Amino acid sequence: MTTEASIEQYLERQRERVNRALEKLLPGRGHPEALYAAMNYSLRAGGKRLRPILTLAAAETMGERGEGVLKVACAVECIHTYSLIHDDLPAMDNSDLRRGLPTCHRAFGEAMAILAGDALLTFAFELLSSFGLEQGRERAALQITRELARAAGMEGMIGGQVLDLEGEGASLSLEELELMNRKKTGALLRAAVRCGAYAAGASPLELEALSDYGSALGWAFQIVDDLLDLEGTAAELGKPTGADQARAKATYPALMGVDAARAKVADLYRQALSHLDRLPRPTDTLRQIAQYLATRTS
Amino acid sequence: MTTEASIEQYLERQRERVNRALEKLLPGRGHPEALYAAMNYSLRAGGKRLRPILTLAAAETMGERGEGVLKVACAVECIHTYSLIHDDLPAMDNSDLRRGLPTCHRAFGEAMAILAGDALLTFAFELLSSFGLEQGRERAALQITRELARAAGMEGMIGGQVLDLEGEGASLSLEELELMNRKKTGALLRAAVRCGAYAAGASPLELEALSDYGSALGWAFQIVDDLLDLEGTAAELGKPTGADQARAKATYPALMGVDAARAKVADLYRQALSHLDRLPRPTDTLRQIAQYLATRTS
Repeated sequence: MTTEASIEQYLERQRERVNRALEKLLPGRGHPEALYAAMNYSLRAGGKRLRPILTLAAAETMGERGEGVLKVACAVECIHTYSLIHDDLPAMDNSDLRRGLPTCHRAFGEAMAILAGDALLTFAFELLSSFGLEQGRERAALQITRELARAAGMEGMIGGQVLDLEGEGASLSLEELELMNRKKTGALLRAAVRCGAYAAGASPLELEALSDYGSALGWAFQIVDDLLDLEGTAAELGKPTGADQARAKATYPALMGVDAARAKVADLYRQALSHLDRLPRPTDTLRQIAQYLATRTS
Repeated sequence: MTTEASIEQYLERQRERVNRALEKLLPGRGHPEALYAAMNYSLRAGGKRLRPILTLAAAETMGERGEGVLKVACAVECIHTYSLIHDDLPAMDNSDLRRGLPTCHRAFGEAMAILAGDALLTFAFELLSSFGLEQGRERAALQITRELARAAGMEGMIGGQVLDLEGEGASLSLEELELMNRKKTGALLRAAVRCGAYAAGASPLELEALSDYGSALGWAFQIVDDLLDLEGTAAELGKPTGADQARAKATYPALMGVDAARAKVADLYRQALSHLDRLPRPTDTLRQIAQYLATRTS
């Protein structure tokens, strides 16, 4: 798959690439100082960089290894980080801790956190325009813009966040939980994969196979998240555990039972691999990422 | 200039076009219902539609009268409306009234207002991608995406909002006030004009002349806004007057005196017209818009 001995080494190398690119693309300081400080604080707080790595891995799988795709990957991460900042706000989940650090509004105040999120979302689209105009990839850049705007927008992530807020304290059915998660976390994960495919000029059939892989992955990711919230430790996760229970949020293990949730993850993992079988290319990296996500402990 | 007898009729006709296009582009209802309701509430609350009209007028001046530009104009209005929703939030200006109605967070709650704003910002970029992909205007669409992302982002409108919040209660110099306003309101007004130019495929020199026109217009617009806040009535403006004084916000009339502020508006109006002289085309509409803005009473 790669020159690395393990998927962990591959992920670490890509994570470093994404981090270096983010540092290069978003100035560490600027005017107004507090805004740049808040944006960088959240963007550089770490995280697994899973979504941008999926973009890079999908693009590489389809033969695109150029540096330009890094801009697309960074745009995906900016959108993810903005969503975390806004989800953590007092009016939303009111979280104090994120990626092991005080949340953006705890560190910079509520107004600055709202604006830093707005600015990261806006910057993501600036990055995409720059990718398209500078690389002469106009059509791909617009396809990616449409993809991310839809996945992050009212029909995707934002719609999912509304369902999440509305569902708090209510008793969701499994179907409602799945719809909420498909929008809230699934849409952007799937889009991250699809953006890599667009950047590589994938054919419609290839795009579809990668989409299905991304959907299965996103679903499995959320179930594992719920299982870890139930069973993991705060030190491993960098955020409080048991938060779902405390807020009476519906989760997969709560609705299905822990064993059934684990079985569902295994099933989705197998589905993800079978979608990759439809690609006429080596897909070792994407397979190993799926395995890593299905078995992760943080 | 147009078939209308007056600039008021022209503005009314374009306002109707923008309103109809917005209603067509953003579904009135959707799932989750509350999100669509909040987005539509703020987007359809009226307003002068000045920014999208500037986009249309600039495009028409440069010979582009197609319906596709309406999508670009609507994207501009979505970004403007999102910025109003977020600026009105309790953590920001904490405003109760906007366009004669309760602000979005007063009507739908704070979480929904944050998300409705996020969704309108995101939807703006979806509209731009759709303009580019469906009209085969990929390069123009990306130039417009870059333009709006920069004008709305950390170096533009969001940066200006941070300066505005930081300046509250402080005694700004005239220079600081101008920088703040250039970012907070000037950048998007200027960008609205530039987007019309890009949509029409204007040359670099034409783009520059229109940019300078837009800059002068944006500056004048803010001074007139300050004068109206001081002198207008709430019924005329659809929002409380005297708000700047009550919040001890720096304004042009407060820093320069009312007479000097009026003289500055007249000077900027003359500048705006002189920039239009550089265009080898009839510019009656843009001239009359400038006059209208310099002399408006609401």
